Amino acid sequence: MALGAFLYPTGHHAAAWRHPDAQADAGINFKHYAAVAQAAEAAKFDLLFLADSAGARGKDWSALARFSTHYVAQFEPTTLLGALAAVTERIGLVATASTTYIEPYHLARKFASIDHISGGRAGWNLVTSGNEDEAFNFGYDQHPPHDERYERATEFMDVAKGLWDSWEDDAFLRDKETGVFFDLDKVYTLNHRGRHFGVRGPLNIPRPPQGYPVLVQAGSSDAGRALAAASAEVVFTAQQTLESAQEFYRDVKARTAANGRSPDDIRILPGIFPVVGRTEAEAREKFEELQNLIHPSVGLSILEHRLGIPLSHLPFDGPLPQDIPITNAAVSRQKLLVELAHREGLSIRQLALRVAGARGHWQVIGTAADIVDRMEELFLNEGADGFNIMPPFLPGGLDAFIELVIPELCRRGLFRTEYEGTTLRDHLGLKRPERAHRHHKAV
Amino acid sequence: MALGAFLYPTGHHAAAWRHPDAQADAGINFKHYAAVAQAAEAAKFDLLFLADSAGARGKDWSALARFSTHYVAQFEPTTLLGALAAVTERIGLVATASTTYIEPYHLARKFASIDHISGGRAGWNLVTSGNEDEAFNFGYDQHPPHDERYERATEFMDVAKGLWDSWEDDAFLRDKETGVFFDLDKVYTLNHRGRHFGVRGPLNIPRPPQGYPVLVQAGSSDAGRALAAASAEVVFTAQQTLESAQEFYRDVKARTAANGRSPDDIRILPGIFPVVGRTEAEAREKFEELQNLIHPSVGLSILEHRLGIPLSHLPFDGPLPQDIPITNAAVSRQKLLVELAHREGLSIRQLALRVAGARGHWQVIGTAADIVDRMEELFLNEGADGFNIMPPFLPGGLDAFIELVIPELCRRGLFRTEYEGTTLRDHLGLKRPERAHRHHKAV
Repeated sequence: MALGAFLYPTGHHAAAWRHPDAQADAGINFKHYAAVAQAAEAAKFDLLFLADSAGARGKDWSALARFSTHYVAQFEPTTLLGALAAVTERIGLVATASTTYIEPYHLARKFASIDHISGGRAGWNLVTSGNEDEAFNFGYDQHPPHDERYERATEFMDVAKGLWDSWEDDAFLRDKETGVFFDLDKVYTLNHRGRHFGVRGPLNIPRPPQGYPVLVQAGSSDAGRALAAASAEVVFTAQQTLESAQEFYRDVKARTAANGRSPDDIRILPGIFPVVGRTEAEAREKFEELQNLIHPSVGLSILEHRLGIPLSHLPFDGPLPQDIPITNAAVSRQKLLVELAHREGLSIRQLALRVAGARGHWQVIGTAADIVDRMEELFLNEGADGFNIMPPFLPGGLDAFIELVIPELCRRGLFRTEYEGTTLRDHLGLKRPERAHRHHKAV
Repeated sequence: MALGAFLYPTGHHAAAWRHPDAQADAGINFKHYAAVAQAAEAAKFDLLFLADSAGARGKDWSALARFSTHYVAQFEPTTLLGALAAVTERIGLVATASTTYIEPYHLARKFASIDHISGGRAGWNLVTSGNEDEAFNFGYDQHPPHDERYERATEFMDVAKGLWDSWEDDAFLRDKETGVFFDLDKVYTLNHRGRHFGVRGPLNIPRPPQGYPVLVQAGSSDAGRALAAASAEVVFTAQQTLESAQEFYRDVKARTAANGRSPDDIRILPGIFPVVGRTEAEAREKFEELQNLIHPSVGLSILEHRLGIPLSHLPFDGPLPQDIPITNAAVSRQKLLVELAHREGLSIRQLALRVAGARGHWQVIGTAADIVDRMEELFLNEGADGFNIMPPFLPGGLDAFIELVIPELCRRGLFRTEYEGTTLRDHLGLKRPERAHRHHKAV
């Protein structure tokens, strides 16, 4: 079972920063991140996972002012990942970076650089920017449509792979005696000319230690699944039930096979928001402590943001309307929340509070045995290859998971007690990709 | 006197990587960079300085194959700077980043992030991309003209400052009791709409600890000087003689004053390529050892690249033509080399060998006393506020400078023996900029 530690600065719960033990300035506190990363590494997590947004998210600033984790005050992930690479030795380092407003040469180079700095531990969670708050920072009046963004993302990933393949693995001879630094026969240009990009290459850094950084995908829409099946090696997804997890798992594995890849070439990690106690009552109490810290306007604002529609004109204790329009936002997340509300008969208030907790991810509250039971059920029944752990608050929520849940996972033989390899690919059991031979000789 | 340690992977000499004591894989060896950075910090350097290029430089691949340091195999600087921030505590961290092929929101955010990670030690050397080898990686058939690039760079820096000013310094309250994370009255949007960029803001990270990262400029053309005088706080420049250094120094200080700034608001650091020995003979011997390692084609290729014109059709032992055309490359560097050749009557071969050593920078070979005499002369006579030290090879060239030259500088009272402050601005004696009030209230 693969485990990611998904690090939101103060934790994933909307009110996490108000928890007495939370580090309220976590987003710009490097010592905090270093300590959390080292704790996750000591517990043998496969990877750290960082989200991203190139802009403050949300239109309701009075709600944002009461909600720390919406990208108003945190490190930029690739620079943070560089720093975390220097204070860890084995754990994988995955950062999210959008393809929508940057050129592929820049991102391919950065992730290759992190892979070299870390000795083969980098992963890139490729996303598209589903948020006009980002678009406005890059000269757009609105963000490009969903399909257009995915088309660009597909070309972007293709270019990135081509750039990582600029050099054969053994191109750099560095022969002091003969004075030959690299082998002229082992460098290639890409000469890419596509709809979105023109990129000659070569990339000015050797092939990453892992061949490519581990490619992660986090969109669960149809376009997201198609991109994942074509290229991704890890899929991060939000699933609320065994059935929906199985549907997603089987669909993505089947699509992956249809792309001529082995189903083992892709690892599916649903998010899980675990609230663990020594007893179920203690876990419930911990959760209620956090829920009671949510400011009324915050949950509604987050829900409006997630659904991409205004809700404040509707009765807070009434139901979610049946006919939510599909917007140009994060399509799969929207669908998941509407289904959750209708399945459990939640009022807008109840849905808002739920979203403010786990943000639409799978929320499990209980003892270590309860939580491992649920994880095991998905893991053994084609629902998950592992999980991206979303601690409610940091560092306490991760510490509790490490102290209580990890030992139970190990006891049942579901999780490692020691790293066997040195790279993120080693941890995940993913093969190192060969160079693709579609290049032009540079000379 | 301010001192920078300008870290080219294996050192600045074209054949540095072939030196018996050089770390040939330095460009992708993080342990190497960490050790060099820590040595520079122990010696109380003001800053580390990293160059950059978003593409392999040079058209002559057979020469590149014999020349390691032309950006074919090295870390991307902002990710490297993040990593170096984690293994150092006091030294300033300056990386070069071009404004030509990226959006300002991305770069402003990265440098703010590095400033936060490092506790106020970041600096940004703003350049334009004077090289078509970069243009080809970003969808261009040729790079934009010199003036156009500087116009974009000027708007870029203005936007970056505006983004760093998105939040007042005390905007983040993080009051767990009241649940107010930030003060709504202290966040601003930029709403910039210019010729090159449209950027709403706010930046999604608090104001950098230093207000702005230290702003460095490295172009010495007329446009470069104008940009420096308007905005830069450190100027890195190539100067060969006391007279040219004085001309540059006085001109930039006067232009800075003409912009309503104090001449003390800008620090001028010429590059110096020091080859130090315990005797002059030992220094000469060290230099010849490096010169003898230069492959014949390498020096010519570097010279062609620097001048932006082909030279291989001319007699290698003949003079440089009088009428070198001004190209769309790095204008000031071109001028400097032509003047050097004509002043000293150098043949193309001699100029090529000189450029392969110090790349057009000021080359000083001698004992510690000789080198400090020359540095002191510039420092005391309006030629320099300090120097960017360009070690011939690493780590040995920097180690020798630290062992021999630094003590002589300290003995003469020219250089510190301990850091007095914690930020790069502290080290350089630069004031922390106030927020500029040109923003729109976000709410």
